[in-house]
This record gives sequence, structure tokens and C-alpha cells, in this order.
Amino acid sequence: MMNSKGVGERRVIEIISSSIGKRCYDDVEVVSINSIEVALKCDMLVEGTDVPRGMEPWQIARKSIVAPVSDMASKGVKPLYALTSLALPKGVDERYVRGIARGFRMAEREFNIKIVGGDTNEGKELVIDCCMLGILEHRVVRRSGASTGDLILVSGPFGYTKAGLKILLEGAKASSWFKARAVRSVLMPKPRLRFGLMLARYATSAMDSSDGLAYTLHEMSKASGKRFIIEHKPIGKGVESFARENSLSIDDLVFYAGEEYEIVATVSKEHLDEVMSISRLTGCNAMIIGSVHDGTGVHIKDEYGERELKGYGWEHLA
Amino acid sequence: MMNSKGVGERRVIEIISSSIGKRCYDDVEVVSINSIEVALKCDMLVEGTDVPRGMEPWQIARKSIVAPVSDMASKGVKPLYALTSLALPKGVDERYVRGIARGFRMAEREFNIKIVGGDTNEGKELVIDCCMLGILEHRVVRRSGASTGDLILVSGPFGYTKAGLKILLEGAKASSWFKARAVRSVLMPKPRLRFGLMLARYATSAMDSSDGLAYTLHEMSKASGKRFIIEHKPIGKGVESFARENSLSIDDLVFYAGEEYEIVATVSKEHLDEVMSISRLTGCNAMIIGSVHDGTGVHIKDEYGERELKGYGWEHLA
Repeated sequence: MMNSKGVGERRVIEIISSSIGKRCYDDVEVVSINSIEVALKCDMLVEGTDVPRGMEPWQIARKSIVAPVSDMASKGVKPLYALTSLALPKGVDERYVRGIARGFRMAEREFNIKIVGGDTNEGKELVIDCCMLGILEHRVVRRSGASTGDLILVSGPFGYTKAGLKILLEGAKASSWFKARAVRSVLMPKPRLRFGLMLARYATSAMDSSDGLAYTLHEMSKASGKRFIIEHKPIGKGVESFARENSLSIDDLVFYAGEEYEIVATVSKEHLDEVMSISRLTGCNAMIIGSVHDGTGVHIKDEYGERELKGYGWEHLA
Repeated sequence: MMNSKGVGERRVIEIISSSIGKRCYDDVEVVSINSIEVALKCDMLVEGTDVPRGMEPWQIARKSIVAPVSDMASKGVKPLYALTSLALPKGVDERYVRGIARGFRMAEREFNIKIVGGDTNEGKELVIDCCMLGILEHRVVRRSGASTGDLILVSGPFGYTKAGLKILLEGAKASSWFKARAVRSVLMPKPRLRFGLMLARYATSAMDSSDGLAYTLHEMSKASGKRFIIEHKPIGKGVESFARENSLSIDDLVFYAGEEYEIVATVSKEHLDEVMSISRLTGCNAMIIGSVHDGTGVHIKDEYGERELKGYGWEHLA
């Protein structure tokens, strides 16, 4: 049933979403129940691909909740309830299960949600699927909707997560300050829930950056039918010297990481002040990274001129 | 983190549900959103434990939807929307993915639901988590609620599923008619959706039998604080001669199978006629198997007297 050449995750999504006849498997889905709109999102965490070495069971469980919270946040949806389905490897011990339970409890408090149920199974590796239900605070912010003249912003700097993985998995060198910051971004990612919910009033389009900044910018550019020009790379403090010390590419750390859980959004210039106030109010470090133009594609503009930013990010299954 | 003696699935459920402080991980969960009650249920299918040899990709995908539909049906909840999260093994081919997509599409039509989204991942084995959202047709039918004097009924006969697995996996002998019937119950299980929704008006308690008939009866007896006496075993046609021919125990086939997706319910005697009409109307073959008494435990009463029915069913992870 399998062959050696994989079909690729995006093709899988194409096949399944075209088969069931909708633009789905993306962002949040809004359904109407007795005229009340409810938003749904599920996100599956798989041990082999989503859990770096050194992550404690409670951090894994918390991360499985972070992912859909971040998606909802970027769409302006307030998460309320979650179901968590587990596959656990045979022979798992009580300490491990208690850790998972503790991570769920912490996430409930941190994001003010309730986990109301779930399912438990035996599997070859740990899998946690979190299905979340939320309500619209204002309106759903889509990937499309960016207008020419809008500013492109991110909720915080990039580069820590991939650096953290290089430190955890490959022993990359780093100052103790940077190491702590980078590893924390891997083990204890912070979704921008309050920022996202407040931003929804102003954002013309938004997505979270969990598939990588470059991929996210390309998706938004494509969905909006606009050219995105990036003039300021959101390089995290210490990322440049980390890259230099370990002979890594800054662009690779900043644009092609993933699981950074920042929000990428476009806003009209006239709302810049409000958005920056929201950023301060919610403890974010939002920054403008570029602007929206007529045309297509995502381009980097710097002292060397303008060039295309490649869109590929991480793809499973291929 | 693991040791050789597993913690056991029911203990996992205990730890997690006590940790997040609710009687959950069971049946459906009802949450209130702006005063509208919505029921949620998720069910995870894992290749290694839930997919017998010989099952086609479309049948696997369909089955992943059948499980939560059956749960909702037994609770009187009409399923409306589903999210399906997938983990697919690396190198999976297009034919396989198209099969999965076809199974989802068939289930959408068969149960009149919409799959509105999902998530796709790479994993060591196929995992499909289906999270379903539904609305109450009348009220939620709980496990508790059986009263002394109530009748115990099932929506159809038992024994086919375990026989089907014996035929598929161990080459058990069977007549061609019985083989087709038993294998169909494994590959194309039929949840009792219409029966369950109509029964909700009359049932004092109910559960689906997907964890095995004995386990289900014990759960309902315990939740209701009543003694269940089984006087008529719901033995499927041909199950007795299949058991004889293969030196198997009839009780084992009937009481300790699982994934049979029949509904087990208690009803007051005065509603027996209505319930039997509903059974005919919905193409079921419901039968009374016993009655509810003061006391505790589940007992079998036959020509040899009364004896306890052991409650164990299948348990993962142990």
C-alpha cells in the first residue's frame, strides 16, 4: 500500500480537502449551530516529528494545546473547550501519564480553557490530537484580505526556535542567556492569545507562523493575491551572533523554522498606533516587517536589492 | 520513561480525568455556548490496534467516523460536523490517500454530517482522530438512570464481530453466508444512528457496545447503582454453530468482543411497544435481554441458575 516515493503532506491535504469538497484543512473552521457561530480547530502532535529530545511529558501535553490556541488566536477566535485524544505506547508508566495530565491542567489555566473529554488508545508512539472549540470575538481573520498599502507585521522576533533545536539536538554553541531563551522557545512556546484576540479588530489578514515565516508569508500573499515586500527581517536578539558562531544562515533560522507560534498579520497604516498599543499591552514585541503591493510573490528588499523569498518550509511525508 | 509493566488504559483515563477535575473521557460531553448546548465527542483510530488485516483504506476512514457517530447515537445526539486529524506513515502513496478521502466522503453521505477540517501529519502508523460536534435531539441519555423494573435491550444481535475477526485473522471455518455476515460486521460496521436518536425519548440509560457487551452492561449497572440480570443472550444467527465448529465459547463471542456498535439501553416497561416500533422503523432487530433490579453487579440467569457475568473487556496498554 506504500511505496518509497511519498505523496507529500500538501498533496495529501489537496486530495482530502478536494474530495470532501471544501477549502478546509486550514486555519479554523466556522460552523453555524442554531444561528450561533462556533469555530473549530484540531491539531495533532506526533512524537516522532513534533517532540524534540529533552521535552518533558508535561511540556509535550502543554504544546499539544499551544498549537490550536495559537491558530485560534491568529484568527481572532477565543478558545473555550478542548478534547484531547491520546495514543500512548504500550508499557507507558504512571509518572509519564501524570506528566501528561499535569501539562493539560497547566494549559487549561494558562489559556483559560476547559478540557472536557478525550479518548485514550495504545499506539506505536505518543500522539495527542487536540480538538478545540472557540467563539469569535469580533470576526474571523482570514489568510486573504491584505490590501495594497497595508503594513505587514509580526507579533515578535524570529530565529529562537530553530536555534533552540540546533542547541538541543546538535549541540550548537551559544551564550548561556541565548541558550536559555532559544531552548525555552522550543520547550515552552508562547502563543500570542491576547494579542491575537485584540488584533482581530484591525487585521486585514493573519495566520500564525507555526509552519515557518516564509511559508506563512507565501500563503497570505497567495490568498490575498498581493505582492509582499519584506524590508525588515524580524531577527531575534542574539540570533545573528549565534548564526555566525555556528556557521548557520540567519535567513534559515528566521524564515524556515516553524513552531514559533508568532502571529503574522497585515493592517492598514491608519491602525498602526492601535496595533502597537495592543502589542505593549499584551507584552508582545510586535514589529513592522514590510508592506503589501500589487502583484504576486514574497520579496526581500535590502541593501543588495530585491529578490524572491523562497516559500518552502517543512513538509512531512515526502 | 516507560517500563515493562504498563499502567493500563483505565488507569490512564483515571489519572487524566481526575487531574483535569471532571468525569470525562467518556460518552459525549455537553458544553454550553451562549446558552446553546453542543455535544462533543472524539475517537481515535490507531492502525496497530484498531485495523484488522484486509481492511481497505476507505473502510478504515469510514470506521474512524463510525465510532463517534455510534457514541453520539447512543446518547441521543445528532452528529453534525467533524474534524479529522491524520497521522500517515512516511512514503504513503496517492492511492492510499485517495482511499482515505473516499471513506470520509462516504461517511459524510451515510451519516449526513460535514467534515469541515482536520490536520495532517507524519507518524509511525496510521492514526485518525475524529472529533465530532452534534446537537441534542431531545436530551442526553446517560449511563446512569436505569430504574428497578426497567427492561434491558440491545439494538441487535451479538457475536458477529469477534467471529469475523477469527475468520479474517485466524482462518476460522464458517459457512459462506455466516462468513459474509461476520466479516461485514468487522469491515463495514453499522452504527445505529436513527434508532439511537429516536430511542433517546424513551431510554432511561444507554451506551454503545463498542467496548464489549459485558463491559457496557457493567458500566451501566455501576453508573445506575442497579443489579442487571440478563435472561436472554443476544446471540446472532449462526453464532452458535460457528462457535461449535471452531471450539469457541459462545459467551466469549457475544459478551467480550467490542466494536460491535450496537446500542445497549434500559427502558421502562410501559414504553416497550414504542421502542419495538422504532426498532422496526429503523431496520434494527432490537431485543429485550434482561431487567433491572435493586442491588449491584451483572448476572446471567439461565437453566443452570444465576451467576455473575465477568466485566472485563479489552484493555489497551496493560
